[in-house]
Amino acid sequence: MTSSQGFEPPSFADVAAAAERLRGRAVVTPLLESPLLNARLGGRLLVKAEPLQRTGSFKFRGAYNNISQIPEARRKRGVVAYSSGNHAQGVAAAARLLGAPALIVMPSDASKVKVDNTRAWGAEVRLYDPVGETREAVAERLAEERDATIVPPFDHPWTIAGQGTLGIELARQAEDLDARLDAVLAPCGGGGLIAGTATALAARAPGMAVHAVEPEGFDDTARSLAAGARKRARADARSFCDALRAPMPGTLTFAINRRLLAGGLAVSDAEVAVAMRLAFLHLKLVIEPGGAVALAAVASGRFALDGRTVAVVASGGNVDPALYAEVLAGAEE
Amino acid sequence: MTSSQGFEPPSFADVAAAAERLRGRAVVTPLLESPLLNARLGGRLLVKAEPLQRTGSFKFRGAYNNISQIPEARRKRGVVAYSSGNHAQGVAAAARLLGAPALIVMPSDASKVKVDNTRAWGAEVRLYDPVGETREAVAERLAEERDATIVPPFDHPWTIAGQGTLGIELARQAEDLDARLDAVLAPCGGGGLIAGTATALAARAPGMAVHAVEPEGFDDTARSLAAGARKRARADARSFCDALRAPMPGTLTFAINRRLLAGGLAVSDAEVAVAMRLAFLHLKLVIEPGGAVALAAVASGRFALDGRTVAVVASGGNVDPALYAEVLAGAEE
Repeated sequence: MTSSQGFEPPSFADVAAAAERLRGRAVVTPLLESPLLNARLGGRLLVKAEPLQRTGSFKFRGAYNNISQIPEARRKRGVVAYSSGNHAQGVAAAARLLGAPALIVMPSDASKVKVDNTRAWGAEVRLYDPVGETREAVAERLAEERDATIVPPFDHPWTIAGQGTLGIELARQAEDLDARLDAVLAPCGGGGLIAGTATALAARAPGMAVHAVEPEGFDDTARSLAAGARKRARADARSFCDALRAPMPGTLTFAINRRLLAGGLAVSDAEVAVAMRLAFLHLKLVIEPGGAVALAAVASGRFALDGRTVAVVASGGNVDPALYAEVLAGAEE
Repeated sequence: MTSSQGFEPPSFADVAAAAERLRGRAVVTPLLESPLLNARLGGRLLVKAEPLQRTGSFKFRGAYNNISQIPEARRKRGVVAYSSGNHAQGVAAAARLLGAPALIVMPSDASKVKVDNTRAWGAEVRLYDPVGETREAVAERLAEERDATIVPPFDHPWTIAGQGTLGIELARQAEDLDARLDAVLAPCGGGGLIAGTATALAARAPGMAVHAVEPEGFDDTARSLAAGARKRARADARSFCDALRAPMPGTLTFAINRRLLAGGLAVSDAEVAVAMRLAFLHLKLVIEPGGAVALAAVASGRFALDGRTVAVVASGGNVDPALYAEVLAGAEE
């Protein structure tokens, strides 16, 4: 049984309620803009800076909104999550704030900064060999042993509603900047961030074109949207966007995304590296590979600005220093 | 004749007026906080993120406030500035917004990203050999030739009042976070940023201890404060903090700083590198060497938190990718 079975998509009211829960807990991350970058890209680009979010990615939003709704008696028995790293940190930090012990199942090849920080937030980390068994299976076994609750990384209405709080902020911040958005692009792994964001924008900016951006090879959402049914990523796909290597859209996220998204795009690792370097130079913002795909879609011209005003979500900044140094050294501007 | 002769220190009203001029022009940069960094440093640390300011450093504030007060007829004849890079970009961007042609005198060994961006903002750049002649002399000759106005980098009340707008924001943002600040530390080159900030805080948070932080060898302000008179930096001083290599405090800035500052500290380049890496890991913020000295003072324990709540100014983020990559690879956490 998947955790999404029988769930209804969150409504805008659910997202607004999540925003109330997150007030004073999550950071209202800034919407950044660089006139030099605008000139270079030929339009107006606004960047929602989730690397500045608590735990360095948007995942704290969904994790906190989810865990806070687990009945207290149950919550005290603990939460379990599986994650390559950003959801791990989000759950660890939210669980600590909410008084729940957290056990996180992470792949043994997870980014070191993500593992270290998950532990630093007070969570117990269990590394598993991604070749031997699925992370879902490991997590379910551990949750059962401990009578703890699994916090799904994306395919759950509470998680999606939490991520959607980003969309409410984005709409308001764009207004504050007198920016009339023509489109919004966000990174897409399992699809929770973009499902929540699109839910918020459908209410706050009706008609807005929202696009999912994925790494090449992991463009399962783009292909699923095109096909009208959930499709798997290629089995041999490889990408350094470790946060976006979900093999398939979620049941619930896809049900939302097929209704609300304008479409999906894919970008190459080389395009992502260029985007990370542009963010370094022009925004002074550290973005991790998976967090930079939406910016890469614009910077590469795959989604050219053409004089339009577009917002992209930079979804996280948890990247190992050695990899980041390599990207800065290697990417051509 | 120096440009500061006969000038009076700006009042708090001057800083407040500057804030009005900058409204909608300068970015209200966020005050960042990382619970993991707090835990590591043993207190509460708030980081004013000026790398996210327009042009990537606080210098836009002072430049814009200064140029906007030059009478229009004169302003149209142009402005001239000398700068290793951040003031250059601040003046270039402000001049463009205010319709003034800008000529910037920069040392031939200035950071490439700073030279490139100064040109990208539309300014004419004149490189000079820092061994052959002083930048002040070059700038004065060029300003005379063109009947243009020099925009002083620090020793001018309009510049100082502009930088002081950071202090107004900082006081309000700390309140919004329910943080009662015990001290504020800011980087110090010629002393304009800290003089303006201290002027604002003296009105908004009376009694607050404000400390200047400088690179070792360039601790002319710390030594001047201790001696009660302006002292020169060591002639053989070397530091990779290119933004803070001013040889001596300004006349006006020192008159303000000796009255308002609690003292000065110096940090080593190695300590700065560690601070830059901590900002990468925990704040996802790109800070240039000179911008990281105040954070370095806290992170190194030279100004230990000891359970206190302290704000540091991260004053800029304009650093070449190759140098940044080297810092990430080299600095031990």
